[in-house]
Amino acid sequence: MSKPKIRIGLIGSGFMGKAHVFGYTTAARVFDLPFEVELHTLADVNDEAAAKAATALGFAHWTTDWRKMVADRDIDVINITAPNALHKEMALAAIAAGKHVHCEKPLAPIASDGRDMADAAESAKVKTQVGLNYLCNPMFGLARDMIAAGELGEILGYRGVHAEDYMADPTSPFTFRHDPAGGGALADIGSHALATAEFLLSATAGPITRVMGDCVTMISERPDGKGGKRHVEVDDIGRAFLRFASGASGSIEGNWISTGRKMQHDFEVYGTKGALAFSQERFNELHFFSTDDPRGRQGFRRIEAGPDHPPYGLFCVAAGHQLGFNDLKAIEIAGFLDAIADRRFEPFNFRAGLRIQTLVETIQASSRAGAWKDVG
Amino acid sequence: MSKPKIRIGLIGSGFMGKAHVFGYTTAARVFDLPFEVELHTLADVNDEAAAKAATALGFAHWTTDWRKMVADRDIDVINITAPNALHKEMALAAIAAGKHVHCEKPLAPIASDGRDMADAAESAKVKTQVGLNYLCNPMFGLARDMIAAGELGEILGYRGVHAEDYMADPTSPFTFRHDPAGGGALADIGSHALATAEFLLSATAGPITRVMGDCVTMISERPDGKGGKRHVEVDDIGRAFLRFASGASGSIEGNWISTGRKMQHDFEVYGTKGALAFSQERFNELHFFSTDDPRGRQGFRRIEAGPDHPPYGLFCVAAGHQLGFNDLKAIEIAGFLDAIADRRFEPFNFRAGLRIQTLVETIQASSRAGAWKDVG
Amino acid sequence: MSKPKIRIGLIGSGFMGKAHVFGYTTAARVFDLPFEVELHTLADVNDEAAAKAATALGFAHWTTDWRKMVADRDIDVINITAPNALHKEMALAAIAAGKHVHCEKPLAPIASDGRDMADAAESAKVKTQVGLNYLCNPMFGLARDMIAAGELGEILGYRGVHAEDYMADPTSPFTFRHDPAGGGALADIGSHALATAEFLLSATAGPITRVMGDCVTMISERPDGKGGKRHVEVDDIGRAFLRFASGASGSIEGNWISTGRKMQHDFEVYGTKGALAFSQERFNELHFFSTDDPRGRQGFRRIEAGPDHPPYGLFCVAAGHQLGFNDLKAIEIAGFLDAIADRRFEPFNFRAGLRIQTLVETIQASSRAGAWKDVG
Amino acid sequence: MSKPKIRIGLIGSGFMGKAHVFGYTTAARVFDLPFEVELHTLADVNDEAAAKAATALGFAHWTTDWRKMVADRDIDVINITAPNALHKEMALAAIAAGKHVHCEKPLAPIASDGRDMADAAESAKVKTQVGLNYLCNPMFGLARDMIAAGELGEILGYRGVHAEDYMADPTSPFTFRHDPAGGGALADIGSHALATAEFLLSATAGPITRVMGDCVTMISERPDGKGGKRHVEVDDIGRAFLRFASGASGSIEGNWISTGRKMQHDFEVYGTKGALAFSQERFNELHFFSTDDPRGRQGFRRIEAGPDHPPYGLFCVAAGHQLGFNDLKAIEIAGFLDAIADRRFEPFNFRAGLRIQTLVETIQASSRAGAWKDVG
Repeated sequence: MSKPKIRIGLIGSGFMGKAHVFGYTTAARVFDLPFEVELHTLADVNDEAAAKAATALGFAHWTTDWRKMVADRDIDVINITAPNALHKEMALAAIAAGKHVHCEKPLAPIASDGRDMADAAESAKVKTQVGLNYLCNPMFGLARDMIAAGELGEILGYRGVHAEDYMADPTSPFTFRHDPAGGGALADIGSHALATAEFLLSATAGPITRVMGDCVTMISERPDGKGGKRHVEVDDIGRAFLRFASGASGSIEGNWISTGRKMQHDFEVYGTKGALAFSQERFNELHFFSTDDPRGRQGFRRIEAGPDHPPYGLFCVAAGHQLGFNDLKAIEIAGFLDAIADRRFEPFNFRAGLRIQTLVETIQASSRAGAWKDVG
Repeated sequence: MSKPKIRIGLIGSGFMGKAHVFGYTTAARVFDLPFEVELHTLADVNDEAAAKAATALGFAHWTTDWRKMVADRDIDVINITAPNALHKEMALAAIAAGKHVHCEKPLAPIASDGRDMADAAESAKVKTQVGLNYLCNPMFGLARDMIAAGELGEILGYRGVHAEDYMADPTSPFTFRHDPAGGGALADIGSHALATAEFLLSATAGPITRVMGDCVTMISERPDGKGGKRHVEVDDIGRAFLRFASGASGSIEGNWISTGRKMQHDFEVYGTKGALAFSQERFNELHFFSTDDPRGRQGFRRIEAGPDHPPYGLFCVAAGHQLGFNDLKAIEIAGFLDAIADRRFEPFNFRAGLRIQTLVETIQASSRAGAWKDVG
Repeated sequence: MSKPKIRIGLIGSGFMGKAHVFGYTTAARVFDLPFEVELHTLADVNDEAAAKAATALGFAHWTTDWRKMVADRDIDVINITAPNALHKEMALAAIAAGKHVHCEKPLAPIASDGRDMADAAESAKVKTQVGLNYLCNPMFGLARDMIAAGELGEILGYRGVHAEDYMADPTSPFTFRHDPAGGGALADIGSHALATAEFLLSATAGPITRVMGDCVTMISERPDGKGGKRHVEVDDIGRAFLRFASGASGSIEGNWISTGRKMQHDFEVYGTKGALAFSQERFNELHFFSTDDPRGRQGFRRIEAGPDHPPYGLFCVAAGHQLGFNDLKAIEIAGFLDAIADRRFEPFNFRAGLRIQTLVETIQASSRAGAWKDVG
Repeated sequence: MSKPKIRIGLIGSGFMGKAHVFGYTTAARVFDLPFEVELHTLADVNDEAAAKAATALGFAHWTTDWRKMVADRDIDVINITAPNALHKEMALAAIAAGKHVHCEKPLAPIASDGRDMADAAESAKVKTQVGLNYLCNPMFGLARDMIAAGELGEILGYRGVHAEDYMADPTSPFTFRHDPAGGGALADIGSHALATAEFLLSATAGPITRVMGDCVTMISERPDGKGGKRHVEVDDIGRAFLRFASGASGSIEGNWISTGRKMQHDFEVYGTKGALAFSQERFNELHFFSTDDPRGRQGFRRIEAGPDHPPYGLFCVAAGHQLGFNDLKAIEIAGFLDAIADRRFEPFNFRAGLRIQTLVETIQASSRAGAWKDVG
């Protein structure tokens, strides 16, 4: 019995576009997907780029007119990896045409746009997904499930960080990421730290209810690429104190000037009965402390990812072999296709993307005001 | 300009067969391959298995007659993931039909068979590859290049280990891996430790010239699956002292009863000017000590895999994101296709597979004799 | 030529009192001290305790009247390890009698008392020291010197934490540490995180100038030891955002409910040219990243404490052997005796203790106000 | 009630002599010793050295005639830290005078001398101790006890190493450690790896019964300090395969040319139910894997030294603060004094030192013969 086809239209063929294609093709090999995936059309800015990328990535067609592609009745899903500023227009057009839409995060530079997108998708009853692939790590699922099952007891505190160093060099130039509308370290990568905090703790400590932000610009001028300097307004470091509904507290930091850090998406969760510690630098491991262990035998234990932590076993039958970053993207895409087939609810939908954007903006507003803010 | 097609025939659809397909499809997305890969025919033991696997894995055709497939003039490459005992017959038939052949390691249960296979391939001028995917890790290439460039100075010593725990439970049953012909921990995984030692050191310390083996069976009986016990003759632990051509010395250990170890393929290399330490448990890292660092600032530094370590950058543009086990397979396959296109020499060919098998057998013979043996 | 004697009077014989004696006796063996140390008199609360401790710890005399001891003209130095609430009275009396005074931290429950103590000591021209022994670690000196020498470039950000779990069990009883006057995690151990931040960064980024605090009580009731419950007002977690004079920013956290953490006094410092990372859990190591390392060879390097990091070499002639916690106390005491002999300036004097106390109180006030505060 | 005095005579005042004094003085503060320790007389090679050291280290008397000191009826214990070649003569003289004797390892350059010393001590019924301070680490006691209690199940394999880099530089000069009589890496530090293996496993797997050695000289000439070169005959690396009485097997390596390694005294023990891994580089930690942990929650857990691991609690009441190298020496000395007072049996006595020396010589003989040897 053959599976129904699902036809994909991709906007953009840069790094993330390529990652999406990896995701689809790997997912098709690894998972028992509800659909047969067909890479239908690729849209890019000019003929040459589009044609070349379509061939390289395995799409049957290409176009330079994303609007036409979005309207194409042969296409079921639109994947958007275009610049952030275009997300809203593209997504609304795709939704209007009845397509399911995957959009890279951030959903939109401002939360109100994200709200329009989430509302539109829900009205149109199409499925959506935002690229939050860290959360697709089997060790994140394990952590969330352990917390939900009470293996840590009552949550007492949380620390999260997402730090990299791609902006640490003061001589690196001004880019679109420094654009005041939607840019900055908090929005760019602090958003991941926020998503992780809520992903892990919502079932027990509840969502984040209040924040106190601290957004700092350390490198206030950058080369403008034309021999001059350009003033930078967005944050290089965005910190926040957090309150969860249960009263538990925590902190996060997004930081793109952490020299030497390539992928420090880390968290520590402390409860009355145990603790978890994780570093994305070694993302196939989760460190677990349990007060249930006997006296003199307690310690953080290094759990290595394996078949006991689904869907790891679909990639490899033996523990310790390790998933890679692109595998997380495949897990993400497989989840999206399952959601489209109504096999599951997609937790990382546009509503979730809006939530993250709302948290980011509330922290930014809190920082400007120098005062705590409730999360709306 | 379109690329020439290369048509693949796969024998076997188990875990490794699946990994090969992952390898081909990922390689096609990641690398600028010399060919357009076409998954042509899959051969398996019965109609149902073959048909189902062909669909799932994306092959256009299937068969239960591997001989017919091997003879099919439409097929260019044969990938063998069948049981070890069949490797020789299949490979020789494929070579005779002029196919390029990838064969999972060990090439053959005994070295003399491997020699026949290597000789046949070289006579027929077809390209061959043996599955030594650990060596395809960018950090292994980095280590080898650093050693070859003299960054460690003269090599003073080496320690290697490949330890897992899949046979540590005395109640786990007797399997084909316990078969006296070709089985045992040394052959199964100690072979990886040997391959790594020569991969890293050959350019400077030269090949292994003498060995002293110590093969030990700790769990001498295992359930036979029929309610009885079966005697085990193969080693659970295979150790060796090593001498390299330069006079440098080292040791390796292959061990499949190391409770708690999932993928301890580790090495330490010490030279007059520096040292390297690596663990497959964290295979995106290489630890490097240099006596060139200033006094008081010396220490093992943790180098994280990134675009500076090709071909990492083809998978991901940013350091620290990490490759997974299946990505290593894609690197392996891409190398094979490049070798077929005469873009490069394939170092992990049947001759290399024979070399590993020869080392294994020499160590086994040394262990039985309780005496050092020259490597033939 | 014999050294002048220095005669010590110790108040208190509990854990810290014992640690002081370890410090004096170890210091006398390890360092070329300016004095011959004589353990003169020990004061404790009753005859039995004082007599027993004097014998066990090697004091020639004992007393239950600390006032008499403080006035004894034969004594040169008073070490105070009595409860915090008594620090001020004891220290002022000792200073008035012309003694040099070492007082365990916190100097006093409130900063104004600390100010009186620091003023009195400076007027009397006696030498003082506060117990900040983490800072005596050779790796802290290394870190501070590297930062001061510009090895990290301009400071971009800082993260510090001091987390333990001695209050993580909600059934552990109310103690003097929960006393609203001077208690709480921020005062008790967050103070160490603050001391470390200024110790490391003062020479370059300057002192902390502004703070935003977040003090949280998670376990709001604890057993009162009489079968009832007692309300807890002090913080279990005290966080702060920090601004340094240079404009650099950072954060610290003091947390005594971090299940599983025994000694997580950690810091990360990021600069334009490098970074440092440290964990007290492995306090004989400092991790250093330098952008001066060649491309493809960069990484955090693990510097192990050794003779290149004074005064390690006085304890052990070979690197990697490791100092223990009590050795840090000996370094602290040796520094104090050197300061008394005018060989050096004592950085951890009462004025420094007051500084920490001021930072703690400013953070607490900021937390109550929900607003940033300048550090007075 | 005052304790009886015990009066110490020390031969040698170099690094190890100093460490012994640290040991005595720290032990006296930390432990409830059976004796009051009196540092009576220090013997060294000339008046100036002896007088200076006696003052610095706190001895009441000094001498340049160790024979006279050994005969002094006022002295109870002789600590020997003189060059290895003198150990035998000094120890036999001290034993003949009825003294208890602590002798640094190796007990004697050749096992037959060690046997004479052990025999003499036992005949004279004096107590002896050999300096094997690594074994005094609370985490070693924990490991041994866990193994003895069956927490690892039946022992399946062992790996030990002691690697440092103090001879890695080929330009470092010929020293007494290169003397053919008793020198070499195996004797110098491989001996520690052997002592640890038997310490941990004797209670379950039994003593080492057979060995296969591999002793290698890599740097065959060293500067003689007079502008010339001197040929080196002793091993830079000494390896051995091991068999224990139970049939369990293992390996050890002693290596003094491991560039970058300062204190790699490491072991891994694998059993049917669990495993332990330890590195002296972080000697306050023991890593424990247990198959009793639930599926999906298994992993090596990092146990930090604390009061649950005696005698840690005597040094510090809180876990995670860490002991230092000199603290291990204090534990060693306290054990010796307890043995003298008949409170306990001293496991690290001259007989134990002889045992290590016998293992070393058997491995050396095996290496020369290129054949397995039974341990006599």
